[in-house]
Amino acid sequence: MAKKEVAVGIDIGGTNTIFGFVDRDGNLLGEDKLKTTHYDEIEVFVAALYEKIMVTAQKIGNGIDVIGFGIGAPMGNINKGTIEHAAGLPWKGIVPLAEIFNKHTGLPVIVTNDANAAAVGEMVYGGAKGMKNFVVITLGTGLGSGFVVDGKLVYGHDGFAGEIGHTAIRPGPSNRDCGCGRKGCLETYVSATGLKRSLLKIMADSMEPSELRKYSFEELDAEIIHEAARRGDYIAKRAFTHTGRMLGFKLADVVAHTNPEAIFLFGGLALAKDLIFEPAKEYMEENLLSIYKGKVKLLASELSTQNAAVLGASSLVWSTKDLKS
Amino acid sequence: MAKKEVAVGIDIGGTNTIFGFVDRDGNLLGEDKLKTTHYDEIEVFVAALYEKIMVTAQKIGNGIDVIGFGIGAPMGNINKGTIEHAAGLPWKGIVPLAEIFNKHTGLPVIVTNDANAAAVGEMVYGGAKGMKNFVVITLGTGLGSGFVVDGKLVYGHDGFAGEIGHTAIRPGPSNRDCGCGRKGCLETYVSATGLKRSLLKIMADSMEPSELRKYSFEELDAEIIHEAARRGDYIAKRAFTHTGRMLGFKLADVVAHTNPEAIFLFGGLALAKDLIFEPAKEYMEENLLSIYKGKVKLLASELSTQNAAVLGASSLVWSTKDLKS
Repeated sequence: MAKKEVAVGIDIGGTNTIFGFVDRDGNLLGEDKLKTTHYDEIEVFVAALYEKIMVTAQKIGNGIDVIGFGIGAPMGNINKGTIEHAAGLPWKGIVPLAEIFNKHTGLPVIVTNDANAAAVGEMVYGGAKGMKNFVVITLGTGLGSGFVVDGKLVYGHDGFAGEIGHTAIRPGPSNRDCGCGRKGCLETYVSATGLKRSLLKIMADSMEPSELRKYSFEELDAEIIHEAARRGDYIAKRAFTHTGRMLGFKLADVVAHTNPEAIFLFGGLALAKDLIFEPAKEYMEENLLSIYKGKVKLLASELSTQNAAVLGASSLVWSTKDLKS
Repeated sequence: MAKKEVAVGIDIGGTNTIFGFVDRDGNLLGEDKLKTTHYDEIEVFVAALYEKIMVTAQKIGNGIDVIGFGIGAPMGNINKGTIEHAAGLPWKGIVPLAEIFNKHTGLPVIVTNDANAAAVGEMVYGGAKGMKNFVVITLGTGLGSGFVVDGKLVYGHDGFAGEIGHTAIRPGPSNRDCGCGRKGCLETYVSATGLKRSLLKIMADSMEPSELRKYSFEELDAEIIHEAARRGDYIAKRAFTHTGRMLGFKLADVVAHTNPEAIFLFGGLALAKDLIFEPAKEYMEENLLSIYKGKVKLLASELSTQNAAVLGASSLVWSTKDLKS
C-alpha cells in the first residue's frame, strides 16, 4: 500500500514551539511541543526540535511519507528562509533557519511569519473559507498579523508584510519599552504581556480593591486576569477594556489600508471573548470613516489556538508542492 | 484611415476637476479643467464637465474615437460607480456618478478613488514601472493613498481600500476637526490645509517674527508657506517639519502593513521636496521595525502633478477593454 503523504507544520512562538503532522485534507495525525525559551542557541533548538519530530513520526508509524516542513515564526521571511531580528525569540540578529534545518533533512523547508501561517490556516480550514480579503491578528506573547488581499497572502517587497504589532500607538515619546528596541508599539498594549502591563498601571492609579493586588508581575498572566475579570474584578475589567480599545484603534487603520471583509482574532487573548471583542469593536467603529462603518466583521478564529498555526504552516508545504508539480 | 482610439481620463479633486484625452501609449492629446467647487449639484457638474469634454474633443479634431471614460474621485467606488461620503467634495451622501454620466454617453464609465488612479498612472507611466509592491500618497487639499500589492491595485472587500488620510494620528480626543466628521485624521495634519493649520498653531505658540503673520487663514496657501520656508522663515520651516513628521509617522504603519518597495509622494505638497521629504523620511525610519529600516524608498512621483491622475484614470478604460476583448 502506498504511504500517506504528510507535511510537518511547525509554529515557533515566544514561549512554546508546537508541531504537527498534517495530511492533505488537514487532518492532524500527531503533534507535540517544546519550550522555545529553553534554547539559547538556535542550532541546539533545531536539533532538539528535529529529534522530537522524529519521535512523533515513529509513534504515528510507518504509514506516512513526510514531504516537507512548513515553519511559522515571528519575523519569518519566506524569500530567504530566515528569522530576522525577532523581538520575542531567544535568537538575535538574522537566523538562517531553513539552512540550519536542512542540515537534518534534504526535504523542503519553508519559513514564514507565524501570523501569515495562521492566516493561511484560517483561509484553508477556518472561518475565512471563501473570503478574498481578510486579516488575521494573532494575540499571544506578542501581536502578529497576516493580510490576505484578493485571495493571496501579502508578503510585500522584502517578505515582511503584516507586522502591525510594531506600529506605534501615537507619535512622540512613549513609556512602554518594546522587545524590538523601540517604544510604544501596539504589541506593548495588545498582547498577554501588554494586558499585564496595563493592569499594573491601572492598579497603581486606582484605589479600588482587587484580588490581583496579591500577585507579583511575574506571577500574573492573561488567564489569571481573565478569570478575575469574569468574577467582576474592576481593575481586571478595566485592563481588558483598555487593551481592547488600543486594538480597536489600530484595527481602524487596518481597515483604511486594505478594506478587509473580516478581521479574525486568534490566540490566547481572543479566548477572553466579549472582554476583548466589545471594546475592540466599539473603538474600531468609532475610528472608522463612514464608508467602512458597520461593514467589517470582527470575528474569533474558528480554529483551535494550537492548530491554526500548525495547519497554516503545513499548508505552505502543500502549496509549494502544487506549484512545482 | 482608421480613427485613433482614445480614453478620457478625469480627475475630480476638491478644488479642480481636470480631464484629458489619452491614447493607448499614454500621450495626452488634449486637456482642460473646471472648478469643482462651482457646482453644488452633481447633475449640473456632470453636464458642464461633459460639455467641456465635447468642446475639447472638437478642438482635437475628428481623427479620434473615444472608447470610454475613467474617473478618479475621492471615495470613488469601482464596484458601484459611486462617490460615497467624500468629505472634500460639494456633493454629500452616495453619488451615483457613473449612472449620471451615462445619461450623456453610452460608453463605459469607470469610477475609482483618485489616489488609486494616480497609483495606476505611476505604475504604467511613472517611477513605479516594473514595481510589484508600492504605495502612492496624494497630497492635495486632502490626503489620498493607493496600494499596489503583487502588481495589482488593492480595492478591498467593499472597493474602498487605501484611505490612510482618514486614519487617526493618536487615540483619544483630538483638536483638529476633519471634513469627514471625525477628529484628528492624518489629513488634518498632512495636506495643504493641514500645513496651514499647523502653521497657525506654531505661530500662536512662538514669538519668532515671520513674514506670514500678515496673512489671514484664508489668504494663506501651501505655495505661500513654501516660498516663505525657502526664504528661511522659521515658522514656515517648522510647519513643514511638523507636517513631514506626521506623514513619516503614518508611513511607518504603511510599511508594517504591506511592506512596499517604495512610497511615492504625489501632488502639491510633494513639490516642496526636501522640506517635506526630509522630516518624513527621518520620522518614518525612526518608527520602523529594524527589518524594514533603510529598505523602503521614499520617492517623488515622476509624473507631473496634473497628468498622473488623468493618465491613471484613463488607464482604467484600457485595462477594462483588455479584460473584455
